[in-house]
Amino acid sequence: MNISALQKERAKYQPKLPKSLKGAVKVVEGAKTESVADQKEIAALFPNTYGMPILTFEEGGKAAESAPVNVGVILSGGQAPGGHNVISGIFDGIKNIHPDSKLFGFLGGPGGLVDHKYVELTAEIVDEYRNTGGFDIIGSGRTKLEDEAQFDKGLEIAKDLNLNALVIIGGDDSNTNACVLAEYYARINAGVQVIGCPKTIDGDLKNEMIETSFGFDTATKVYSELIGNIQRDANSAKKYWHFIKLMGRSASHIGLECALKTQPNITLISEEIADKKLTLGEVVDYMAKVVAKRADNGDNFGVALIPEGLVEFIPEMKVLISELNDLLAEGTDSEKEFKMLRKSHRNEWVATHLTEISSSVFRSLPDGIATQLTLDRDPHGNVQVSLIETEKLLGEMVSTRLDEMKANGEYVGKFGTQYHFFGYEGRCAAPSNFDADYCYSLGYTASVLVAAGKTGYMSSVRNTTAPADKWIAGGVPVTMMMNMEKRHGHMKPVIQKALVELEGAPFKYFVSKRGEWAYNTDFVYPGPIQYFGPTEVCDLTTETLKFEQNK
Amino acid sequence: MNISALQKERAKYQPKLPKSLKGAVKVVEGAKTESVADQKEIAALFPNTYGMPILTFEEGGKAAESAPVNVGVILSGGQAPGGHNVISGIFDGIKNIHPDSKLFGFLGGPGGLVDHKYVELTAEIVDEYRNTGGFDIIGSGRTKLEDEAQFDKGLEIAKDLNLNALVIIGGDDSNTNACVLAEYYARINAGVQVIGCPKTIDGDLKNEMIETSFGFDTATKVYSELIGNIQRDANSAKKYWHFIKLMGRSASHIGLECALKTQPNITLISEEIADKKLTLGEVVDYMAKVVAKRADNGDNFGVALIPEGLVEFIPEMKVLISELNDLLAEGTDSEKEFKMLRKSHRNEWVATHLTEISSSVFRSLPDGIATQLTLDRDPHGNVQVSLIETEKLLGEMVSTRLDEMKANGEYVGKFGTQYHFFGYEGRCAAPSNFDADYCYSLGYTASVLVAAGKTGYMSSVRNTTAPADKWIAGGVPVTMMMNMEKRHGHMKPVIQKALVELEGAPFKYFVSKRGEWAYNTDFVYPGPIQYFGPTEVCDLTTETLKFEQNK
Repeated sequence: MNISALQKERAKYQPKLPKSLKGAVKVVEGAKTESVADQKEIAALFPNTYGMPILTFEEGGKAAESAPVNVGVILSGGQAPGGHNVISGIFDGIKNIHPDSKLFGFLGGPGGLVDHKYVELTAEIVDEYRNTGGFDIIGSGRTKLEDEAQFDKGLEIAKDLNLNALVIIGGDDSNTNACVLAEYYARINAGVQVIGCPKTIDGDLKNEMIETSFGFDTATKVYSELIGNIQRDANSAKKYWHFIKLMGRSASHIGLECALKTQPNITLISEEIADKKLTLGEVVDYMAKVVAKRADNGDNFGVALIPEGLVEFIPEMKVLISELNDLLAEGTDSEKEFKMLRKSHRNEWVATHLTEISSSVFRSLPDGIATQLTLDRDPHGNVQVSLIETEKLLGEMVSTRLDEMKANGEYVGKFGTQYHFFGYEGRCAAPSNFDADYCYSLGYTASVLVAAGKTGYMSSVRNTTAPADKWIAGGVPVTMMMNMEKRHGHMKPVIQKALVELEGAPFKYFVSKRGEWAYNTDFVYPGPIQYFGPTEVCDLTTETLKFEQNK
Repeated sequence: MNISALQKERAKYQPKLPKSLKGAVKVVEGAKTESVADQKEIAALFPNTYGMPILTFEEGGKAAESAPVNVGVILSGGQAPGGHNVISGIFDGIKNIHPDSKLFGFLGGPGGLVDHKYVELTAEIVDEYRNTGGFDIIGSGRTKLEDEAQFDKGLEIAKDLNLNALVIIGGDDSNTNACVLAEYYARINAGVQVIGCPKTIDGDLKNEMIETSFGFDTATKVYSELIGNIQRDANSAKKYWHFIKLMGRSASHIGLECALKTQPNITLISEEIADKKLTLGEVVDYMAKVVAKRADNGDNFGVALIPEGLVEFIPEMKVLISELNDLLAEGTDSEKEFKMLRKSHRNEWVATHLTEISSSVFRSLPDGIATQLTLDRDPHGNVQVSLIETEKLLGEMVSTRLDEMKANGEYVGKFGTQYHFFGYEGRCAAPSNFDADYCYSLGYTASVLVAAGKTGYMSSVRNTTAPADKWIAGGVPVTMMMNMEKRHGHMKPVIQKALVELEGAPFKYFVSKRGEWAYNTDFVYPGPIQYFGPTEVCDLTTETLKFEQNK
């Protein structure tokens, strides 16, 4: 394999561990736990894994004679920087427990468990992937482990391989499913434990015990590098507004973190827009006013950050999309009528078949976007929200609004746009020092939880704004993070998704500053992730964590 | 100003200089020069600046008593990483000549000279911008300095500020114009010298004496970081082909350099496509075959690099665009007829009004792109080539081709695409060590050329694959790089643009490898630019330079 100079040097990096994991580990049980809500329902659904205590690791346990532990590891869902370090942490952890311990990787995500596709992860393989980005060591996938037939197929291979435990590395849904699996195996006395690890660049898997999901730090650093570079370009050329869409459908943590790092002129936070029940027109109005006021200062340039999932947080757009889904549902009479029409007549027809409010929203959309909403549909006939080019939608609508303002004498300036979408650029970056250390610690923690015979726990590493030495490792019962939510029409136990808290310190700081950032040019240019320099540069954690922990 | 942790540390970096510039400098004259072609015409057009000798700087001149030198500096054209270091190099250079020397920056590009907009660049200002990206210290602009009225306006302010010289930092066109200005000022005995510095991320301003233009190193490193991250994602998720368009209209150096750094599956080189006179269909065919062959191995993913200027290098597309420009030229009868038509009938009408060949090319284009070619036109009615989404054009056509191949049993696989365009992400990145050193040396060199009374020269720093200490600094007469070319219907003296040489070592190596890279997954992941680590990581130069200099 031809590897880059950086990769060669980076392979030598030894991730930092919390002090408690460096020698023999004492597992300390805390108080019994309750789920965050719906305690009765969750307890009933998880009789074997509900209410377990929080576990904290301390130094100074005696190094007990341990038997080898065999672990199967699964990468689930979208890539996040540091996944390979979770795996190397598990590997080193179980080898430390006993040199004959074995690690197996299931290939291509949870489907690998069901289909019995796996590889033994030897030292040779693991060493090649230390401190690298990507999930390519075993691949990932989006198969959902949800039904007992899958669990039973998984158990077959777990028995064949003599596994003590499965470690599932994933986001909120994958960890929910990991807990269901843990409960099932506990119920049938399968003898296979299940441990989760919190992964997602979106940052929406977090709570009191899980301070951050891994990958968020690195991904937001990559996006902020690019945003900073674009800001510097905007401020040099002084002729474009750059509308930058950032990956992340369900929460705006990425946008908020990048805003705190780079201080752009506009950052839309979906949760705020939903909370204030803003219309699309009001969002456009806000943006157009910032553009106009900057133009008054002679600044016909700027940068706006837009969360990928925005349209689903705008109440009237949500209603419109739902009406379109009904109107154009496959096989309905209305869909047949729609399809019979000339293309050039379709949008007008659609507008007359919606409720009054949705009709006026639909008519306010640029032609191309309106057409996209009626044409780009998934196999069930639903609007494909992920295909909506929200950055262009907003850019075109702001441009139209500015034309009106110009006609009214409220705007004097030029409005040229450039569009960007950042997502794939950051999901597989090599982990920052923080993520390299954090992931390795999460993996190592998982190995300790396995050796301690625990199941239904998630690896937890806290106090993460302190130096790694002082991080607090342990385990959190997954049921503790659960509540009941409606999914696809049914109430289900799920890990509560962490949205941006409008009363939280990171958002409040942002709100206190965004006025200045809008009209001045207060851009900050973070530059690329550094691995070898001074600790103030290389070991920075996220602004979100710093604000949340009052640092 | 709120600056990032990296920026704070990076400000301390002292760029490396060639040995010859560290003490007193001896200016050594080489042989008289000739232009690369059209010697007679060029000599006649530049009687005062033609045929001057190459200058090389050596150590050990005696530190002569010098008077202060006052310099005006101009940033011209698109941003490139390192511009601020050229300015700090000039500043330190002229201050070293005499502490009373002064540096003035003209604001917003060449227009600042004509409009007498400037700022004095004091130590305080310059220090704030050392080793940073962007051109925001004084801004840049695209005004062309071409006629004598502009030159005379410039001379007024030069006289007011008592300038010895102007230093123009720009690409091939800007340096051509700098030379015309030098000639004019020499002819009228204005007493103002003009020196150029070679800037452009495109890499197309280079020759025997100018080994590379500044910014190319940094920009291609940023793009390669992102390409590598996307490759890792492609190889982890194994479900998408990423089509990545790279900035640069007139040459494919960026694509070639990024390919050498990252080893993607497909890289299109415009110069090769033009040389082989490939049709759009043939290009699509090549890409579809690679996709299909990878699918045979079970690999339904990959990465393709596409130069921004591609369509203008495909002969039949060039003809089509030119026919469209004639057909739809503003105010013509055909344009009026076109505009009277229903939108849905226009493309068909266009197809019937082109030559047979162009008509069939036009009909082969996806609807959206065909419409774009007839609608998105500049104020003169010309097709706006820069708006053509070449990456989507190719993606859609490859998809159609694969459908045909599937029907013929020649393809079994899935083809999902993601599109990216990288340009603004790299133009204002903080300069790599190479560009920081190279730019500072170019600026310092310019100050020595000014002090030596030279005009019509470009700063030249050679031997750039050696450590900076061994770089060879000096001056090259701009006329030496010129030839006569047709521009807007007239023959003009211009600096010859450097296209990718199909017989050059970088391209030949690429050709020898691209078959393997296409079918295997040989991705290399360069990672982000590093500033503080081991020299093998931080001081890497480009692959292009290494191959060109046989290193």
